[in-house]
Amino acid sequence: MAVSTHPPSGFRDFIKDEARRRFELMEKISSVYRSFGFEAIETPAFENLDVLLGSGGGDENEKLIFKVLKRGEQLKDALGSNPSEDSIADFGLRFDLTVPLSRVVAQHRGEIHLPWKVFHIGPVWRAERSQKGRFREFVQCDVDIVGAKTFAAELEVIQAVVSAISSVGGEGFELRINDRRLLQAFAEKHSMTDAEFHQFAIILDKKDKVDPSTLRDEARELLGVKFNAQVEGLLRGDLGLESFDSIHSTASDELQRMIKTLRDVDLPVSAIQFDSSLVRGIGYYTGPVFELRHASAGYSFGGGGRYDRLIGRFMKESLPACGFSIGFERLALLLKEQEKLQSSSTVFIPVFHESLRAEVLKLAKELRQNGIAVDVYADEAKLKNQFKYAGDMNRRWVVICGDDELKQKRLKLKDFESGQEEEISRQDLVSALKIKLKAS
Amino acid sequence: MAVSTHPPSGFRDFIKDEARRRFELMEKISSVYRSFGFEAIETPAFENLDVLLGSGGGDENEKLIFKVLKRGEQLKDALGSNPSEDSIADFGLRFDLTVPLSRVVAQHRGEIHLPWKVFHIGPVWRAERSQKGRFREFVQCDVDIVGAKTFAAELEVIQAVVSAISSVGGEGFELRINDRRLLQAFAEKHSMTDAEFHQFAIILDKKDKVDPSTLRDEARELLGVKFNAQVEGLLRGDLGLESFDSIHSTASDELQRMIKTLRDVDLPVSAIQFDSSLVRGIGYYTGPVFELRHASAGYSFGGGGRYDRLIGRFMKESLPACGFSIGFERLALLLKEQEKLQSSSTVFIPVFHESLRAEVLKLAKELRQNGIAVDVYADEAKLKNQFKYAGDMNRRWVVICGDDELKQKRLKLKDFESGQEEEISRQDLVSALKIKLKAS
Repeated sequence: MAVSTHPPSGFRDFIKDEARRRFELMEKISSVYRSFGFEAIETPAFENLDVLLGSGGGDENEKLIFKVLKRGEQLKDALGSNPSEDSIADFGLRFDLTVPLSRVVAQHRGEIHLPWKVFHIGPVWRAERSQKGRFREFVQCDVDIVGAKTFAAELEVIQAVVSAISSVGGEGFELRINDRRLLQAFAEKHSMTDAEFHQFAIILDKKDKVDPSTLRDEARELLGVKFNAQVEGLLRGDLGLESFDSIHSTASDELQRMIKTLRDVDLPVSAIQFDSSLVRGIGYYTGPVFELRHASAGYSFGGGGRYDRLIGRFMKESLPACGFSIGFERLALLLKEQEKLQSSSTVFIPVFHESLRAEVLKLAKELRQNGIAVDVYADEAKLKNQFKYAGDMNRRWVVICGDDELKQKRLKLKDFESGQEEEISRQDLVSALKIKLKAS
Repeated sequence: MAVSTHPPSGFRDFIKDEARRRFELMEKISSVYRSFGFEAIETPAFENLDVLLGSGGGDENEKLIFKVLKRGEQLKDALGSNPSEDSIADFGLRFDLTVPLSRVVAQHRGEIHLPWKVFHIGPVWRAERSQKGRFREFVQCDVDIVGAKTFAAELEVIQAVVSAISSVGGEGFELRINDRRLLQAFAEKHSMTDAEFHQFAIILDKKDKVDPSTLRDEARELLGVKFNAQVEGLLRGDLGLESFDSIHSTASDELQRMIKTLRDVDLPVSAIQFDSSLVRGIGYYTGPVFELRHASAGYSFGGGGRYDRLIGRFMKESLPACGFSIGFERLALLLKEQEKLQSSSTVFIPVFHESLRAEVLKLAKELRQNGIAVDVYADEAKLKNQFKYAGDMNRRWVVICGDDELKQKRLKLKDFESGQEEEISRQDLVSALKIKLKAS
């Protein structure tokens, strides 16, 4: 056993219930996204490095790019003459889905109708230091709207994400909202330099992980005499939206109307609130920012915002855009905690002996054509072992069809949960099973 | 515009109809796989390099591994002292899904019940030379059964794949079957050395791309006096299964029974046939091999086989296994050619003016809760522009709800295809739309 069977450090395998739950979650999220008229897009795992670098995807994320080695002659050349990190790699793995989307918009500008409502689901990769609970590959489920400059777009992405989470049974989520324009105007009013504001935003963004007094000390140290009661209020998230009326009336008014409309449509969240301390650590946001939190956890389950300047990096025309991304892994974890154990809805048919296998396969095919999932034991084995497998796999309904049953066209349907067995004519099997499966 | 907006060479973006088709195809394939009792698994994009190397995944595939640069101090150290391809990379991108599955079986042996029926859908990466029609990232849709030694397992994976393709409307596929044991025994009977057999298999595997006379010449040159009428027959795929009775009666008998059962269950394929020239270029196959071909194309749409020794690389216990993989991109392309243009089943609701938006959003929400997909224009815009968008997006059904309509609770439903419009009370809208959508 020379070869380790572990996935690489920071990576995970998913099997059994965990894989099933992730699969179902992804299907449900995409189904809700489509019900809002969002279209699927797919982008490659790899991007040219210059697409990923300098995108403003948070300086932090750019430091975490996995880089791909050049190949063949190009690699030989690079290794031959003073090789450096820059000279030996050409591609990088995407660290989010927003930068690739922005590139795609520029590349396919002629084929798309604005506003373009798209969803984008897939893994992203970040070379985080390996440590418990930190993963280097994780799935994002984004909705984005390109080419809309008003908050009508924010309303769509927020509704789509909240509906998706609610459709899988997620409850008790709180939506927090702020606006980068307010933060920016606040910083200017308090005479922060650009560098100070940048540092201040980094402090704000640590709010979940650091206790309040440390946070205050850091801000005070950074800002010196500029640290006052207002700054402290903002840091605590206590400043009401009305405090910003005199600082940036346009943004403050828009945010007020946006929050009112969200409340009017009766979103399935426990609260919708303005949070003056919300910053979302992404460099490219330019307007409203928002995130979803859950009472049971000290972190966000998804976040998004407006990024009106990112697409302009890739084309002459500047296009406004906003998006919202679900933190898939955290949601999957939350759902796992809430999940009730259920027996499998897949019917099992044992093969009494090999000469009956073709008959069993035909029966299974007929059931599947009627929308019933059927598992047949995939090897030659004694009946005892086949039944043990059905138990291990948590199959509840078992169809018994030995020689006698097939000859008389009367099968037996066994309920592994109650232990009861009943006789059913072969022609009634489909309708009988449909009733059983609906009831169970 | 300093940054190129193209995806990296050999990679692709998918948008609009192409993305939709891929999405639907993946959903349908996985749904059929599940209807056979296969469970989902997910493995990471990255593997440790020693997992990928020496796996027998075809020498060719191993040469095509994209390698990932080490990071931080490790990279610095590697670059500092005579850097080589091996010293500067630690991870590789998976080139198929079978090698990762085999690792996962070893890693999670205690949690799984045999035979384990799993499906595995995701992208794989190969550093092919960039050329037209060659892609470096493509999706595979695999079913595998681990721990079953009889061809009952082959029957399951073949049925699952054929049903999946047929469920998306794929017709006219032909299933070809051979067995590595027959090829091996044939080579021994004709006194080929291991090296000769290896080369001979490479020649056989080129059969799709090279004309018959070139193929024969290459085989004759390789084998010299060992090249005879029998070898020529095998090369042409003309040898019947009965010719192998005397060479390897067990394999020949098993294959005969397997083909008979497949015919008995009435698979939705145009033909099931033994092909003595089928080799499938993967080093790890040990028994039956099979592939799906279509009359319209000179290449395979999927292939698979038995690999009884691969899992043993990762654990002390040896476990038999077999699998079948759908060539997703080729199937998507074939379906594209067959697809009829359809108008969108997503209903469109224009916003007459912004003060009505909350009402429109509430109406849209109600429709979605009843299973109807609804698109709302995601920006402030004149009605004319909203209707143009609805046309561009191919939306057929448009719900008109201006001030009057909302006040009187009588909406208008417009059919963009016929141009007809009818009045409907708000409370009847859901049922009316359901009928329209079912009919269209």
